[in-house]
Amino acid sequence: MKYQFQVIVSLKPGLLDPQGKAIEGSLPAMGWANASNVRVGKHVELVVDAETEAAAVSQVDEMAQRLLSNPVIESYRIVSTAPLPDPRFEDVS
Amino acid sequence: MKYQFQVIVSLKPGLLDPQGKAIEGSLPAMGWANASNVRVGKHVELVVDAETEAAAVSQVDEMAQRLLSNPVIESYRIVSTAPLPDPRFEDVS
Repeated sequence: MKYQFQVIVSLKPGLLDPQGKAIEGSLPAMGWANASNVRVGKHVELVVDAETEAAAVSQVDEMAQRLLSNPVIESYRIVSTAPLPDPRFEDVS
Repeated sequence: MKYQFQVIVSLKPGLLDPQGKAIEGSLPAMGWANASNVRVGKHVELVVDAETEAAAVSQVDEMAQRLLSNPVIESYRIVSTAPLPDPRFEDVS
């Protein structure tokens, strides 16, 4: 079955975030001086075809660690969304 | 009151996503040939200090349109998280 995931990769707290600082720098000129604490990260969507949801989650966790993030400076969290309908069974019901 | 938001900015469907393709290209060599449909976007966290949650949401929506995304090629969605505790009232309770 196909499972859809979102992996959100963000810089660990305390590390300088140049993209976030650049956005914060432009806020006062645009009239939004009341916004702060801007942090920019990556958002990765992907689909994994696995037997069980547990297997899919464990694979995505390994992918996030080894491929999608740099564990030295980044942390990640995984958001699981509903399994995709299997097109093979779409006509049966 | 301070409200925390997440803005997720992703390329519109159908547009080529070079970052996603690069990740997909490395999947088979790492033993994850069952993963597909990789799309990479931005994840922005920010805090807005506003009178009401409705005012905060409306401001974040405008920020997402005018500053955080390129509406020609990108779409965004806003996730609101719980209001932050107000430090001015922290000692009262």
